Amino acid sequence: MYKLVLIRHGESTWNLENRFTGWTDVPLTATGVAQAQQAGALLKEAGYEFDVAYTSVLQRAIWTLWHCLDKMERTWLPVVKDWRLNERHYGGLQGLNKAETAKQYGDEQVLVWRRSYDTPPPPLAADDPRSERGDLRYRELQPGQVPLTECLKDTVARVLPLWHETLAPAIQRGERLVIAAHGNSIRALVKYLDGISDDDIVGLNIPNGIPLVYELDADLKPIRHYYLGDAEAAAKAAAAVANQGKA
Amino acid sequence: MYKLVLIRHGESTWNLENRFTGWTDVPLTATGVAQAQQAGALLKEAGYEFDVAYTSVLQRAIWTLWHCLDKMERTWLPVVKDWRLNERHYGGLQGLNKAETAKQYGDEQVLVWRRSYDTPPPPLAADDPRSERGDLRYRELQPGQVPLTECLKDTVARVLPLWHETLAPAIQRGERLVIAAHGNSIRALVKYLDGISDDDIVGLNIPNGIPLVYELDADLKPIRHYYLGDAEAAAKAAAAVANQGKA
Repeated sequence: MYKLVLIRHGESTWNLENRFTGWTDVPLTATGVAQAQQAGALLKEAGYEFDVAYTSVLQRAIWTLWHCLDKMERTWLPVVKDWRLNERHYGGLQGLNKAETAKQYGDEQVLVWRRSYDTPPPPLAADDPRSERGDLRYRELQPGQVPLTECLKDTVARVLPLWHETLAPAIQRGERLVIAAHGNSIRALVKYLDGISDDDIVGLNIPNGIPLVYELDADLKPIRHYYLGDAEAAAKAAAAVANQGKA
Repeated sequence: MYKLVLIRHGESTWNLENRFTGWTDVPLTATGVAQAQQAGALLKEAGYEFDVAYTSVLQRAIWTLWHCLDKMERTWLPVVKDWRLNERHYGGLQGLNKAETAKQYGDEQVLVWRRSYDTPPPPLAADDPRSERGDLRYRELQPGQVPLTECLKDTVARVLPLWHETLAPAIQRGERLVIAAHGNSIRALVKYLDGISDDDIVGLNIPNGIPLVYELDADLKPIRHYYLGDAEAAAKAAAAVANQGKA
């Protein structure tokens, strides 16, 4: 049996401000740092060991991993940063307040943008100053690979190649992985692992900064999954995520 | 022309307590964090860009790099952690206060242990609780590769293979490298690059947390080197390092 640990980053400044973030590279809040440290403390207390850590190229996930590894006294672990673990790109909504957007467009439209499997938000214009196309960290990608918007289906389409080419073979070689990523890149992975339908994925929310453990069989089919620590707190935190997009 | 940037970690708790540290994995002090951030600010201000960062498997160098990259807004850069960049192993002196050791053994003996090229301090016993031989981070090394003591010559002997096999080819491929490491692993590298004699290396001290820039020609021979920022402050900090081992 294999174990895979997924951690959504701790609270970021734009989580706190209730703004759509996507690929915008905002830092953790002090609460987010504490959540990351708490995740590390839980993992250490439960005796988890890892061989390699994966994260995105966005600082809120990177810092979450760093604080987590520090609390585990494992700063020395190899870390791989991959853009395919980035948050879903939120297109023209990036930077907008979720509640204000809901007031303007209605709760239903915002829920569609936030959670519909295949309806992306309006795209950024390629010359929008918010576009990441000129960002150095993506310079080895084809320009078309840097999205101007994404629906979850698009996120799945870039996360799964990383799973199949890199993560799954590593796990099957016996490497113990921890992945610090984002609400939607984790939802993409979980949708695939648990075979969740396009309709049902709408209702799945990932709380900030709580280690989510997947136990996998030899074929990497999930046996069970659970949050470390206080189960009720994890459920509450997930419900809070679900409510962010309401006016 | 190539540029290579070397940074000794910021002040650690055992720098502050004036204790021999070696491979003991102690954290940065608040001053050390500030030094690392200042190093990042200097590099950013001077417009430095890197393709890959190297560091040791000791948290004081790793955290120095992390804070430095954060200030540069480059947390997403790939980071390679290699034990061969570790500090010189200080053997049986690890944990002892430098001034007290000098009182007990005399300034001259301590200077020999600190700076002689080929006289190692007394070794740790293999079963000394301070030995790193059971440490997970070294589990892929042969037991004999984890030292019980080192003189600088021993440190050179493990740093140079990393230089020749990995760092030099990367630089010659055009990759811009920053290396966050330790007083003696940097001295080992500098001794090789500048062709400093076994006698003269005794007098060379590397200050904490100040970027040291080497400009290298096509054959990686140094054209010149300099510290970023306030040159006088760098000289003072280096002199302070030289005085640490006096009673």
